[in-house]
Amino acid sequence: MEKEVLRKELKVSAIENGTVIDHIPSSTVFQVISILGLSSIDNQVLFGTNLESRKMGTKGIIKVKNMFFAASEINKIALVAPTATLIVIKNFAVVEKKPVFVPDTVEKIVKCFNPNCITNHEAIPTQFQVIDKKELKLRCHYCEKITAKDNMTFIS
Amino acid sequence: MEKEVLRKELKVSAIENGTVIDHIPSSTVFQVISILGLSSIDNQVLFGTNLESRKMGTKGIIKVKNMFFAASEINKIALVAPTATLIVIKNFAVVEKKPVFVPDTVEKIVKCFNPNCITNHEAIPTQFQVIDKKELKLRCHYCEKITAKDNMTFIS
Repeated sequence: MEKEVLRKELKVSAIENGTVIDHIPSSTVFQVISILGLSSIDNQVLFGTNLESRKMGTKGIIKVKNMFFAASEINKIALVAPTATLIVIKNFAVVEKKPVFVPDTVEKIVKCFNPNCITNHEAIPTQFQVIDKKELKLRCHYCEKITAKDNMTFIS
Repeated sequence: MEKEVLRKELKVSAIENGTVIDHIPSSTVFQVISILGLSSIDNQVLFGTNLESRKMGTKGIIKVKNMFFAASEINKIALVAPTATLIVIKNFAVVEKKPVFVPDTVEKIVKCFNPNCITNHEAIPTQFQVIDKKELKLRCHYCEKITAKDNMTFIS
């Protein structure tokens, strides 16, 4: 019985082909899942949170089988997980490993902070220019108001 | 490089002490996480969805390190994951393995279907008697209306 369960646990741990997102802050793993829409796909997905990390104290990790993200897609998560590393696995081998980057523009995933902005009243997707990548400040394409890290809300 | 990553993946897979919830329907893994409040705890949590299962086609699994649930707590998840199995692990060994059961009463986690019910207007926690465990029908303690599986909403 014990052996059976331990084998099963090992079986699900490695992926043959797919994407691993490593070094996610533990506190934002569920935001990353939401941004990438991972709760409603049919692919095999493995996640861990509050895992030990020498670099970060604790970290989260997400593995998605048979899914390869475009850089633009992955860079969205830089907004909530700037420390994240993207690892592409093919045939159990690492073929690519790179950090995420805060993108130049952000579309759809962030809500505009300005209650009077047209994107909060009509069915218009939000669109921002990232004017400060370090402090994370986004200028709305429509109302030009600045949405900053502290008042950033994600559209799930 | 390849070896390093594969080792890391194996490292996170087994838990020394804690609870494994196996055989969760893939479609309700995130509901189980929400019901048990696993997205906001500091314990190590591992989960997988759309995993291969001989019994179920696909299944989800959740492992929580150093956490042991009361039966009443676990039975809540029977409402969304009636196929689930609870496995208690101590020192890497299975010490208990049992199915979940739909409880006799349900408190707080389900919203009453009746819009006029007092629980939808005042800060009173919902409370139901389970009158049909197979078809999943809950009678509200306050308004006596029946909330059934098809119109069941969970309070997250």
